[in-house]
Amino acid sequence: MAEAVRVDPARVIADLRELDRRTGGPEGARRLCWGAEWREARAFLEELLDELGLAFEHDEAGNIWSRMEGTGGEALALGSHLDSVPRGGWLDGCLGVMAGLGVLRAWASAGEIPPRPLLLVDWADEEGARFGRSLFGSSAAAGNFDPAELADARDADGRPAPEVLAENGVELEQAPRARSRLQGVGAYLELHIEQGPVLESEGVSAAAVTGCVGIERWRFSFRGQTAHAGTTPMELRRDAGLAAAGAARSVERIGLESTGVATTGRIEFEPGIATAVPGGAEILADLRHPEAESLEAMLAAVQEQVRIGAEKRGCESAGERVWRIDPISFDPELVALARSACSRIAGSERALTSGALHDAAEVARVIPAAMVFCPSRRGLSHTPEEDTAEEDLSAGIEAFGELAAQVLSRG
Amino acid sequence: MAEAVRVDPARVIADLRELDRRTGGPEGARRLCWGAEWREARAFLEELLDELGLAFEHDEAGNIWSRMEGTGGEALALGSHLDSVPRGGWLDGCLGVMAGLGVLRAWASAGEIPPRPLLLVDWADEEGARFGRSLFGSSAAAGNFDPAELADARDADGRPAPEVLAENGVELEQAPRARSRLQGVGAYLELHIEQGPVLESEGVSAAAVTGCVGIERWRFSFRGQTAHAGTTPMELRRDAGLAAAGAARSVERIGLESTGVATTGRIEFEPGIATAVPGGAEILADLRHPEAESLEAMLAAVQEQVRIGAEKRGCESAGERVWRIDPISFDPELVALARSACSRIAGSERALTSGALHDAAEVARVIPAAMVFCPSRRGLSHTPEEDTAEEDLSAGIEAFGELAAQVLSRG
Repeated sequence: MAEAVRVDPARVIADLRELDRRTGGPEGARRLCWGAEWREARAFLEELLDELGLAFEHDEAGNIWSRMEGTGGEALALGSHLDSVPRGGWLDGCLGVMAGLGVLRAWASAGEIPPRPLLLVDWADEEGARFGRSLFGSSAAAGNFDPAELADARDADGRPAPEVLAENGVELEQAPRARSRLQGVGAYLELHIEQGPVLESEGVSAAAVTGCVGIERWRFSFRGQTAHAGTTPMELRRDAGLAAAGAARSVERIGLESTGVATTGRIEFEPGIATAVPGGAEILADLRHPEAESLEAMLAAVQEQVRIGAEKRGCESAGERVWRIDPISFDPELVALARSACSRIAGSERALTSGALHDAAEVARVIPAAMVFCPSRRGLSHTPEEDTAEEDLSAGIEAFGELAAQVLSRG
Repeated sequence: MAEAVRVDPARVIADLRELDRRTGGPEGARRLCWGAEWREARAFLEELLDELGLAFEHDEAGNIWSRMEGTGGEALALGSHLDSVPRGGWLDGCLGVMAGLGVLRAWASAGEIPPRPLLLVDWADEEGARFGRSLFGSSAAAGNFDPAELADARDADGRPAPEVLAENGVELEQAPRARSRLQGVGAYLELHIEQGPVLESEGVSAAAVTGCVGIERWRFSFRGQTAHAGTTPMELRRDAGLAAAGAARSVERIGLESTGVATTGRIEFEPGIATAVPGGAEILADLRHPEAESLEAMLAAVQEQVRIGAEKRGCESAGERVWRIDPISFDPELVALARSACSRIAGSERALTSGALHDAAEVARVIPAAMVFCPSRRGLSHTPEEDTAEEDLSAGIEAFGELAAQVLSRG
C-alpha cells in the first residue's frame, strides 16, 4: 500500500468518539436497531460519506451501501454494523464501519482510484436486540433470510416488526432482494472487537479470525411434582428445580471437557415461590464449538445428562431446539493474508475462532470473507464498560487497512 | 361426650362441599382473602350460624367470632380459616372452621349447655396470599402483629393493603385490638389437613400435631462477571449462575442430612439471556426444623456452603434474611389428649410436627393450643387437586370432636 493511501487510525477513532458523543454516554450506546438513535448514528455515517463526496443508498433490507469505483475487477466490500444492544459499548459493530470508511477515506484523500471497486456496508440489525433475529441485513444479502421469520415478531412494547421496519423504509417481504448487492463482490473484510478476553490475556493487539463457531441453543424443561416446602419430606420430593440446577452444572462440565464453550444463561423454577418445591423448571443452554462433529457430541452429552439427571429425581425432561447455526470457516487465503497483515503491524500471527457471530459469518456463505479482531478490555462487551486500549485500536485499524490493501492489490 | 353431643362428620363434609360449590370449581378454591368470594364464603358460614341461632361478630382484625355460652370456666376456642390461596384446594382451612362449627352444632342440636363457653373463630387472611403477610388475624389476636408490616403493602394490582382492608371493615391501625378476644380463653384447638404425604404413606387417618417447625427464609445473592457466552473461555468465567445452582444443591444436601427440610423455591440469573454468562444470580432458600438449635445449625451450614461455593468461582455472595419464625411446641397436655382422641377414633397414636404454619402456631404463643391432622391425598395442597378420602375426613372430624369433648370436660 502506498504511503498516500494508508488509513488514518486517529481519524477513525475520532469518528468513533464523535458517534459515542451523539448516541452513547455513561449509560452506554443506545443505537437499538430501527430506532431514532440508530437512525441518528446512520445519519452521522452519511454526513461522513458526504464529506468524502461518496454517494450511498439503502438496499431492500435496510443496509447502507457506498461505492467507490476502481480500475477494474471484482469489488472488495468492507463493513460491519452501527446498531448496538441497549446499554451497549462504543465499539461493537461501529469500529468495523468506521475503519472501512477510513479505507475509503484514504483513497479519496489521496485522490487515487483503487485497483478494484471498494464498497462500504453498514448492515442493518446485526444484534437482533429488538425482534430476536440477529444478522438481519447480512443474512438477507447472503440469501439466508426468510421474511416469515419476522412476520409475527413484536418488540417489547408489542409493536409488530413489519410495521417498525416499514417506518425505516424496509418492506419485510422485499428484504431478500438485498441479495443482489453481493453480485460482483469478490471479497468481504470486517474489523471487530473480540468481545472476549483471549487477545488481552495474550497481549495481542490484532489477530486474524479463522471463522465463527457453530451454535446449538436448546431449552430443556423438567417436570416433577409441585409440593409444600414445609410438609414434604426430602426423600419424597420430585424437585424439578434441582434437576434443572444439576443440568446447568452438567452443561458446564461438558463445556470444560470440550474445546468449545457451554453456558446456561437462564433458569426458571415454577411456581417459583419460597414455600413450594418446584414442580417445573427450565434452563436455556447455549453450546458452541468451531467443529460440527464436536458440537454434535457436546449436544448429545448434554441431552444424556439432562435425561439421567431428571430420571434420578423421578422427573420427566424434554429438550427443544431454540436455534442452531453451523460452524463457518472463513476463506483460507484471506485468513492467511489477515495473519500476515496482523503480523506486520502488530507482531503476532495469532489466529482465533470467533465465539460470537458476526455479519461476516453470513457473508462467508456466499463470498470469500475474513475478519480481524482487536482485543477487548477485560473481555467485556454488550455493556457500557466495553473498551479497547487506544494503541490496540490503532493496531487493529492499521492491520485491517493493510489487509484491505493486500486484497485490493491481488490479481 | 354424651351420644347426644357427638359431632356429625357427614354434615361437616356436606357443608364443605356446599362451600366448594359456591366458591370453588375445577379451577380450585377462589377464596382469596379480602375479596368478593372470600366474603361469600364467610356469608355462608354466617348463614350456618344463623341456622343454629348463634350470634357472631367481626373483631378489629376481621376475624369472625361466634360464642356459645357454657356453664362456667374458661372458654374453648375452635377454628381455622376460610381464606385460600388462588387456585387452592377445597379443604385447606375451611375443614377446621366447618369442623368447629360441627362441634357447636352438636351442642345446639342436643339443646344442651356445654360445661365451658365454646368459641368458633374464622381467622382472617391466614394465607397471606394477597399482601405476603401470613397469619394476619391470628397474629393480631396473639399480640404478634404490627400494623407497620402491612402499611405499605400492595397487592398484585397495586392496591394498598390499608384501602383493601378498610373495604372489609378493618382499620389496619386498630387490628392489634383483636388481642382482647383471647382473654378468658383457656384452650384453642384446630383441625387441618396435613398438606404433606406422611400420614397417607403411613395409613393414618387422624394424628395429633406436636407443634410447628421454625423457619429461616433467606435470599442468597451471587455476583460474578457478566460475559459473552461465545467469547469467554470456560476457565476465565466467573459464573454467578453456576454458583447459585451449586448453592441450591447444597441446600438440598443440608436438608437431607438434617431431620428438617430445606428447599430452593426460586432461582434467577441475571441478565438471564442465552448469550450471556450470568454475572448475577439469586436463590430463595427455605429451611425448616422443629428444634431451634438444629434450625440454627442448618442455616449456618447453608451460609458456609454459599460462601465456599461462591469463592470457588471467584464470585461474591451475600445472604439476607427474608423472614424467620421460631419453632412452636403445642401444649403437652392438649397434645396428649389429641393423641388419645386420635387413638380411640382412628387407632393410631401417631403425632407429628407440622412443617407448615397454622393459626394455632400464633395462638399457642399466648394460650394452650393443639391440632389434629387429616391426611392429604398424594400430599398435595394449595392446588385444585388437594383432597382427602372421605373416611379419613370423617375420622379426623370425629377425633377432633372427641378431643373438644375431652377438653370441655376437663376440670
